[in-house]
Amino acid sequence: MKTLEKASCQGFSAAGTACGLKKNGKPDLGMIFCSVPASVAGVFTRNKVQAAPVLLDKKNISSGVCRAVVANSGCANCCTGKRGVDDAVETTRLASGNLGVDAENVLVASTGVIGKTLDVEKIRNAFPRLVDSLSPDGFGAFAQAIMTTDNVPKVSAVQAEFEGQTFNVVGAAKGAGMIRPDMATMLCFICTDIQANPNTLKRVLRPAVDASFNRITIDGDTSTNDTVLLMASGLSQVAANRCMDLFQQAVDKVCLDLAHMLVKDGEGVNKVVTIDIQGADSDQDARRIADVIAHSPLVKTAFFGEDANWGRLLAAAGRAGVPLDPYVVDIFFNEVQMVKDGMGLDMEAEAMATEVMKLPEFTVKIDLKMGKGQASVLTCDLSYDYVKINADYRS
Amino acid sequence: MKTLEKASCQGFSAAGTACGLKKNGKPDLGMIFCSVPASVAGVFTRNKVQAAPVLLDKKNISSGVCRAVVANSGCANCCTGKRGVDDAVETTRLASGNLGVDAENVLVASTGVIGKTLDVEKIRNAFPRLVDSLSPDGFGAFAQAIMTTDNVPKVSAVQAEFEGQTFNVVGAAKGAGMIRPDMATMLCFICTDIQANPNTLKRVLRPAVDASFNRITIDGDTSTNDTVLLMASGLSQVAANRCMDLFQQAVDKVCLDLAHMLVKDGEGVNKVVTIDIQGADSDQDARRIADVIAHSPLVKTAFFGEDANWGRLLAAAGRAGVPLDPYVVDIFFNEVQMVKDGMGLDMEAEAMATEVMKLPEFTVKIDLKMGKGQASVLTCDLSYDYVKINADYRS
Repeated sequence: MKTLEKASCQGFSAAGTACGLKKNGKPDLGMIFCSVPASVAGVFTRNKVQAAPVLLDKKNISSGVCRAVVANSGCANCCTGKRGVDDAVETTRLASGNLGVDAENVLVASTGVIGKTLDVEKIRNAFPRLVDSLSPDGFGAFAQAIMTTDNVPKVSAVQAEFEGQTFNVVGAAKGAGMIRPDMATMLCFICTDIQANPNTLKRVLRPAVDASFNRITIDGDTSTNDTVLLMASGLSQVAANRCMDLFQQAVDKVCLDLAHMLVKDGEGVNKVVTIDIQGADSDQDARRIADVIAHSPLVKTAFFGEDANWGRLLAAAGRAGVPLDPYVVDIFFNEVQMVKDGMGLDMEAEAMATEVMKLPEFTVKIDLKMGKGQASVLTCDLSYDYVKINADYRS
Repeated sequence: MKTLEKASCQGFSAAGTACGLKKNGKPDLGMIFCSVPASVAGVFTRNKVQAAPVLLDKKNISSGVCRAVVANSGCANCCTGKRGVDDAVETTRLASGNLGVDAENVLVASTGVIGKTLDVEKIRNAFPRLVDSLSPDGFGAFAQAIMTTDNVPKVSAVQAEFEGQTFNVVGAAKGAGMIRPDMATMLCFICTDIQANPNTLKRVLRPAVDASFNRITIDGDTSTNDTVLLMASGLSQVAANRCMDLFQQAVDKVCLDLAHMLVKDGEGVNKVVTIDIQGADSDQDARRIADVIAHSPLVKTAFFGEDANWGRLLAAAGRAGVPLDPYVVDIFFNEVQMVKDGMGLDMEAEAMATEVMKLPEFTVKIDLKMGKGQASVLTCDLSYDYVKINADYRS
């Protein structure tokens, strides 16, 4: 399995353009088109408040067939009532007219401010030139068009070989706030040319999402628009059911790559930190502790301050509501042990731990020394810029 | 029942001094002394990681009798192993020697950095002058000595009358980070001269804490040192069991006052916001939604930005994991309705809501229109200063 510099995938073309939904004139409308009916599976937000495009997609995806995806930034089309659903449906109709495909086989996604209605007129006007610019190399332009507070477009592509034949998996995603386990204001679109039916895709997508997007957190908020789609054109010579492990690995790899990019490019993020919990009574306990630490503002501001304040780590672990003996806990910053049996080591250890925290990425390992449960979560620091971005977002 | 400007309570004297635990030379050691054996009850942190003074107090309080409290700032004496407990015990012995009371009747409390050992020598040296300065008017000085990142000392005092006799309730508390429902890095010491046994005090303290300190949040972190003590000298002419409602009201009032002061003086706080949830299926559901909203970084940064971003409120409510119909929800900023049936109202409403958000204190009311469940939680904004204070705390 190899990573591809140039993302492409047989059957799929993509494009992005500026249609005026964003006030600043930046790209805000993207499309992915499949030249044949693609199989599709999706994972959507569990928030009780769900945006219109999520509601529509959940209906349209039931056929298992997708021909095109239309995604816009600049407006979440959420909390927009019946009008919001009408606007989402109208978007699929416009795509249908421009592409010559069934409207029911078009999926839509929106991201941006909640509560603003979608200006479909702008989308209508932009569609002809968007369709004209569809290209097998268009994933970068597509990724650019779905950015909100992201700083960089996010694309990951891998190629895998099975019995002398190759297949591709290409994904494009956007963050960058409202990211947490259980999905996010995260949109992610994954295309593959492997041969796979919707059920196979579903079986592969759920664990891939659980091991990647559901293990990252930027601010603990969950979006109303989270959507991950996996589409298969079937145009390669490889059948997924003959190499399920390899296919799973390829989809996992793309999801993990994109998840890592999301955290790294999170709002105001300077540090990407892996919280690695070992020795808990169960994996579930370990996950619970990892989550509490990953969300703790005191821990996250200490990361920002490059302060090896291990007491905050222990205090956060202690309020996770799971068994823990503070007198046996060990804590490491990368390879540097800072805490042994619940007590801080010397100034030298602290100086070395502080050096580790100056790195842009590091791991905090906490060993509870109770059992075999383990979990890891990817988090980030909490910085001035996070506050600035989110205090000023709408102004 | 009236609020007293000058806090005092028969039998109790208090004092504060600087003993050198804080590098900056500010007051860091406080004492409350009771001239007679006081009844006592306490509520302590539920964090699994508990500081040495908490462990010792839980033992000493079992007698139901307290003669003195020693509280220090500048060092939490937490994650300090067996040495930490020895240091806490030694502190009670030193107080015992200076005050002529049993060491077992001395309670201790510490707040400050976790993982640093307590320099008992400094406490030993300071005790004689601390005891000399004990005064019925010393609650202000005591409150000053327990401050960490607090900006102002926090004292609340009320006097109530029952059948022509008065009794007093005086409380001193400190915040200001690690504050959340389920207690906090909060220390709170309440003295009363009512006649009450330890069981009566316990019965009154728990609901008072639940209705006050357990309903506030600054950053969602729970401290390892949280302690609330209620002590009764019995030197007034009023017996608590003859006026339980009135006594409860008086303790509630002091706790609510102090809780409000804690949020107002929270780290980097510019806005004190009441999250008021109405119309949930149950009070428990309402509380769950209020908590999620009160902790949401996106909501809190919007408060800081004075941005009536109601979409974030709805999105946070939606991920609380309780039943909610987004199409019927109403949202108000004080009296200004911003959302009706899940949709934002016009620009005029938004302009008025934005005016409300410019106030230093306001209420966000969310009516789910499903049932009769309700709850309210006091929270605050998330500002640059919160990040600054917590990134730099130890440097």
